[in-house]
Amino acid sequence: MAKSFEFWFDLGSPAAYLAWKRLPKFLAQTGAGVEHKPMLLGGVFKATGNASPVTIPAKGKWLLDDLARTARKDGVPLAYGPGFPVNTLPLMRGAIGLQMRKPERFAPYVDAMFDAMFGQPKDMRDEKTLGGVLAAAGFAPAELMALAADPEVKQALIKATEEAVARGVFGAPTFFVGSEMFWGQDRMDAVAESLAAGAA
Amino acid sequence: MAKSFEFWFDLGSPAAYLAWKRLPKFLAQTGAGVEHKPMLLGGVFKATGNASPVTIPAKGKWLLDDLARTARKDGVPLAYGPGFPVNTLPLMRGAIGLQMRKPERFAPYVDAMFDAMFGQPKDMRDEKTLGGVLAAAGFAPAELMALAADPEVKQALIKATEEAVARGVFGAPTFFVGSEMFWGQDRMDAVAESLAAGAA
Repeated sequence: MAKSFEFWFDLGSPAAYLAWKRLPKFLAQTGAGVEHKPMLLGGVFKATGNASPVTIPAKGKWLLDDLARTARKDGVPLAYGPGFPVNTLPLMRGAIGLQMRKPERFAPYVDAMFDAMFGQPKDMRDEKTLGGVLAAAGFAPAELMALAADPEVKQALIKATEEAVARGVFGAPTFFVGSEMFWGQDRMDAVAESLAAGAA
Repeated sequence: MAKSFEFWFDLGSPAAYLAWKRLPKFLAQTGAGVEHKPMLLGGVFKATGNASPVTIPAKGKWLLDDLARTARKDGVPLAYGPGFPVNTLPLMRGAIGLQMRKPERFAPYVDAMFDAMFGQPKDMRDEKTLGGVLAAAGFAPAELMALAADPEVKQALIKATEEAVARGVFGAPTFFVGSEMFWGQDRMDAVAESLAAGAA
């Protein structure tokens, strides 16, 4: 039986970024397959009554310290661009749109977007800056913008976000192994254990 | 140099209960000393704008699943009594009062209270039930209640809670290694790493 898990994410989540950076090693170590699941975290927050932890100043401060500790340990750069947390609606439409229409370009897009959000952060709210990031990663900005404006793509992101909420998601990243849910990059060990138990 | 850390807790927190149960092994493995720090989590929530995660239903559901997974892994019973989350004001006054007046009875009290909250949970809101739990653990209920009503004890809990908030605490359990803060029973590995780094 092939083992696989779902990785639900939003490009605006630094915890999802850290998880994304860990995925290649994780996949190699577990031998598992991953199903990428873009969702709009802002929509999840709205539907569940949850909110970004940075809305509680003491919690936000600690969380950023904790993510920095994890990033150092993982050897991954982590920084924040202007306006964090950023509205990721156009970015996530681009992600799900590529997954639908040009799946081979999905991972390069997510790589480029996460790096521009948290690796060497830029002002991703600025259309020209975003265009430059896209172009540098080999995407035609106008094409991506048209994709993000496509009603089918918009609808797909709404549906995906609704599915996430219906299945109990309230934050990012969220992993599913079958129906078992794990929230947070700090639960990847538990995901690995669940995959191993399921494969046994 | 002696290594030590602070353990801030409230008897109403199931995550603090799991951490408490792990402490003996943790102390043996790290060789560190622990300073127990009772606080009123409800007061911390009020001051920081934070709230129990169970106030977000999807998050509460996942958290209870996650704590159950940890409890199974640790081989510790975990269940919830009526009225969870319970107002722990009298229980925490008892904890800090014993720490001030009969420190040798502090750990047995915390043991008995945590067990009655989450090990074999009882309705700890009921004075008679609470009295029975205290008596079974060798405490005179009337003496404990007088202690919890002592103005100096009440003031000490207020001061401790204010100190927690001033130092950045927003939840329980919280650990400090010097000024470095760690939130959650799931950060005890990071606490151990920090202790080891500090001792090197």
